[in-house]
Order: sequence, then structure tokens, then C-alpha cells
Amino acid sequence: MTQPSDKALVPFVSVDNMMRLVHHIGIEQMLIEIAGYIEDDFKRWELFDKTPRVASHSDVGVIELMPTSDGEAYGFKYVNGHPKNTSEGLQTVTAFGLLADVYTGYPVLLTEMTLLTALRTAATSAMAAKYLAPKGATTMAMIGNGAQSEFQTLAMKAIVGITEVRLYDTDKAATEKCARNLAGMGVSVVKCATPEEAMHGAQILTTCTADKKNATILSDNMVGAGVHINAIGGDCPGKTELAAGILERADVFVEFPEQTRIEGEIQQMAEDFPVTELWEVITGAKTGRRDDKQITLFDGVGFAIEDFSALRYVRDRVKGTEFADMLDMLADPDDPRDLFGMLQRSKVAA
Amino acid sequence: MTQPSDKALVPFVSVDNMMRLVHHIGIEQMLIEIAGYIEDDFKRWELFDKTPRVASHSDVGVIELMPTSDGEAYGFKYVNGHPKNTSEGLQTVTAFGLLADVYTGYPVLLTEMTLLTALRTAATSAMAAKYLAPKGATTMAMIGNGAQSEFQTLAMKAIVGITEVRLYDTDKAATEKCARNLAGMGVSVVKCATPEEAMHGAQILTTCTADKKNATILSDNMVGAGVHINAIGGDCPGKTELAAGILERADVFVEFPEQTRIEGEIQQMAEDFPVTELWEVITGAKTGRRDDKQITLFDGVGFAIEDFSALRYVRDRVKGTEFADMLDMLADPDDPRDLFGMLQRSKVAA
Repeated sequence: MTQPSDKALVPFVSVDNMMRLVHHIGIEQMLIEIAGYIEDDFKRWELFDKTPRVASHSDVGVIELMPTSDGEAYGFKYVNGHPKNTSEGLQTVTAFGLLADVYTGYPVLLTEMTLLTALRTAATSAMAAKYLAPKGATTMAMIGNGAQSEFQTLAMKAIVGITEVRLYDTDKAATEKCARNLAGMGVSVVKCATPEEAMHGAQILTTCTADKKNATILSDNMVGAGVHINAIGGDCPGKTELAAGILERADVFVEFPEQTRIEGEIQQMAEDFPVTELWEVITGAKTGRRDDKQITLFDGVGFAIEDFSALRYVRDRVKGTEFADMLDMLADPDDPRDLFGMLQRSKVAA
Repeated sequence: MTQPSDKALVPFVSVDNMMRLVHHIGIEQMLIEIAGYIEDDFKRWELFDKTPRVASHSDVGVIELMPTSDGEAYGFKYVNGHPKNTSEGLQTVTAFGLLADVYTGYPVLLTEMTLLTALRTAATSAMAAKYLAPKGATTMAMIGNGAQSEFQTLAMKAIVGITEVRLYDTDKAATEKCARNLAGMGVSVVKCATPEEAMHGAQILTTCTADKKNATILSDNMVGAGVHINAIGGDCPGKTELAAGILERADVFVEFPEQTRIEGEIQQMAEDFPVTELWEVITGAKTGRRDDKQITLFDGVGFAIEDFSALRYVRDRVKGTEFADMLDMLADPDDPRDLFGMLQRSKVAA
């Protein structure tokens, strides 16, 4: 068998290896480190190629490619969204990603991204809260206790320093699942019967529910002065969680306005509804939290640059480790013009 | 270790396995079969989602994603183009592709596509020639003896029935390489010192040179009546091979006019230069070759649907064989809301 050269082999991180990597690094440490990569990329926001995502819609779902590049590396994520999958025992969302070298065009990493997306989403929320939440925040209300809830909680613990999470979900089984998973993780967990109970004493309100509809998870009179709202669940057209009145009282921070106006909570508002881009808060160009009375709101929808940061992180972290398998994915004839000769010689070798 | 379910595993065809598959099926048989898949997809051309390719340009090259869908399957190809790579011992073009199920959004095939692209390009040319070349064509001039030349020759042998190929390249070493690779393959090979000598007695003229410039590989007075020109090398902006006079005398057939007017030979012509879409010839809606005097010209640039056909073919052909490895690429928790629990249990299991 012909042995492919080093560059023809692409490191691949399987789901199993991603889980091993998380345990090897420690989930909180990994969330901190991924948040650091995202923060670094938000600081150099302007140099990114911000291509819109390329969506292929069908009656039952969507398949999207989300590419971006910083001029040195190029990354994309493949992600599907099929709400009906759950009832068929399949995942609503699956994802994988690829990083390539812009200078050669050669892929340098292929990785599962379902777990990695959960990690980067939580890391992004916590990074935003670090800039926007009241100083000394200790308590988070977690409204919606699905797949993202434990990751959000641990990221807010590791990066913002919360010590208590107050859980609420319309489905009690989800709250039980989340509480069970968080037991012994170093954060005090309170199961709540109503959203109001969950929000009691909380400085950070995280909403992350699953229904694809314009729901009112938080109504205007539920939200007091001074809190930070981390709104994660309003992330596609027709899916929002907050009453418009909250958005009017809050200062709203977003990733990429062009995308958030279509997919985020602010799809409810006028096209010129004022927002601040999070990257400008991080560089210091714009003010984040001004005072104790202000309601800050991160309207997070997930942006390609966060995936890019996560891909960069995994590339750096798996280099030279056992956490990647080498995939023979790129044909590599000795003479580039002699692809056919490579094919013929492989027959002789076999 | 947690065992992922069947659907979470994605069949992967490595370069090595693709070469084994070619030898297992036989290259001519495989070219015939791929051409059959492409022909089937050209017949149902109108139902495809024809998204433009998504390109990320840099000073030294381009990285592109080429997605398409027929409503049942979704495919995309990743392909780079870096002309300067050759001088650094790397491939100008590398490619891989993915096929997914539109109904679930789950990937069903990941495969190398450098070899596969070479095969589908040759299969497409031969399929076009089957409809457009003079009946009973026996001789092809192959102008440009690089990586695509052997594949073109064997596809024209297998699908159109040519028995002689006449080789010409400005680089004699390329001609020697091509002649060596084609020795004993059942086609008579003639090495020629000039393009004119290569075209002597040929009913099919294939141009496939590598220079990225507006070159005149064929000038007007070199091309006589009745031939079929298979123009493969004019495939990106600023790269053409034929004199405009030839295009004016010929009936020009293209894959997707919107793309060919930018990338093909017809980029030299006015925006309303008349062309016929190849798929309409294949369905019988339009006429291909009318008479013995007509010059037909296939201005091939390579279109996403051809990659899609090739991906469908590989998916069908590797099913249940040893030619695919199963990649653990999709996270698959028993309870979709319990991604975190899957992660925790993997720690216990390890």
C-alpha cells in the first residue's frame, strides 16, 4: 500500500475522542479555554470574512454550511436542524466541522461538533456575561433545562463565578435530569416549580427553551432592574422567548446584527432597533454595563466565528495527542500531474 | 466505552479505499456507471437546488464549498485551488465530499473527492460526447497531457468507443507520462510533436491544459468542420483555451449557463452568446448534433450536480462492502436532551 504523506492525512476528532478530551482537560477548564479563544477572535472581529450561512431548506428541516476565515485559517461547520427528529429517536441537530490552512487550501482538522457546539455556546454566553452581568453575580435562573442547560451552568460557574443555579422547565423530567447531572459539580442546585421562583434572587436569567414558536417565556413584569438576561433559545426565524417589553427596557447586545435581526429575540422589533455589537464591548470601543439598574441582554444566536474559535482550540489542543485519528482523505501523488499513475501503482502494490 | 448507534456512524471512503474500489470495479466500468448516474441526474435537472458555489478567496488561492440537493439527498464538495502549491510539492487541488439525508439531516457518506472528481469530470465529458460527437468517432486528440488526460481517454474509450488517442503537450515529459500510463489499456496511443499533428484525423478534440491564462491552444484555422470539441481546461475566470472564432463557428453546449459564462470558454463572448444546456439535449428537448458539418463544443467547467451524482454512486457502491470505514462523527445520546449525561457516562465508562 502506498503511504500517504503527512499533509495528506487529516486529523479527525471523533465523538468518543471529544468526550475523552473534555475529561482529560476538565470541562470547566475547557470552557474557560474555549471562551478565551472566542474572546481573542471577537477582539479581531473586523478581519474576519463574514460570509452568510448557506442554507438548504426542506419541508422537515434545514442543512446549513457556516464558513468563515481570518485570512490564515478557514473553517466551516455543517449543521442540520430537524425538530421532528426527536420523535424518531434521532437528534434534532448534528454537526461536524473542518478547519483548513488558507495558504495551502489543505484541511488540517475534521471534528465532531455536536458536543463542541454545546461547549462553545455556553462559553460564548459566559464570556458575554463576564462583560455584561452585575459584578459579583452569584445566582442564575436557568429557564429551560434541555441539552444546553448543564453546559450553561458550568460555564457561568467557571467564568462568571455563580454558585447557585435555579432550574425551571415546563417538563419536570427535564429539571430532574439537569439537577441529577449537576449534582456534585460544585454548584448549589434549586429545582423550582415556576419561572418566578427560579428568578428569585437571580442576577443572571438564562432562557433556553426548545419550542419553535414565538413564546413568552419571560413576560415584562417578571424582570426587575439590574439583571443580565442571557437569551439563547430565540435562535431562528419564528422562535423567540421574551416579551417585546423586556427588549425595550434592556440594552441589547448581539453577535452579528445582520444575522440576529433575522434569528434572534430582536426579530420582534423594528429593523432599526438599537443594538450594540458584543465585540465592540470586548475591545472597549463601546460600553457594556453602565450601572446597577440597567437590564443588559445578550441576544445570542450562535455565529460562525465562535465555531471557528472552537475549531482553532481543538486543533491546538489535539496536536501531538492521542485524541485524533489520522484520516487518509487527500490524494497525494508524488507528481501532481500523475494522479492516474498513483492509481495504477496502488493496483500493483495491492 | 459507549457504543454509538448505527445512524451516528458515517461511512468514510479514504483515498486508499477509493483506489481499491476503482480496481475492484474496473476503471472503465466505473466511468460507465458514474456517467450513468450523471445522465440520470441531468434528466431530472430542474428539480435540483442549484445554489451558487461559496468561495473564500485569498492572495494565493481559493477554497470553495459546492452544495446541491435533489430534495432527497444533499451533497457538497469542499475543493481548494492553489496554483502555487505545485512548486511546494503539494497538490493544486484537493477535494472531499459529503452526502446527507435531507429527511433527517444526517450525513450518510464522507469521501475523498480528488480521484472521484477526476473520474466524474471524464465521465461527464464522455457523456456529453456520446450525445454530441460524430457517430462512429474513433480518434481523439488530447491536447494537454496532465492529471486529467488518462481519465478522459479511458472514458471516451469506454463510453464513446474511441480506439486511438493522439497526445500533445508543450511539456514532452507530460506526454511521455500519459503514454506510459495508457500503455496496455486497449487504446492506440500516438505521441505528437504539434497540436496539428495530434488533431490529424481526430473527430474529437479534447483540450485540457493547466495554465491559468487566456491562452489560444486551438486557433480558428486549426479546427475543421464536423468535429466535436471537448473543452475542459477553460474552467475559471481568466482561463480559456480556444480562439473566439471557434466559438462563433460552433454550437456550444454547457452545464449551467450562469456559471459557464463566468468560468468557461464563453467568458470571452457577449453575455447573450447563444448556448444550449446539455441537460435539455439529454432529455430530448433540444437537438444535439444536427449534421456532419456542424462543430459541436462542450464547454465543461464542472458543476455541483456532477459531484452529487458521483457521491450518490459511491454511496450505493460501498454499501455493505469493505471499502468504507465507519466514522464516529455524530453525537448520539439516548435522550436527545441529555447530551451532558452522555458525556458524564463516557467518563465513568472510561
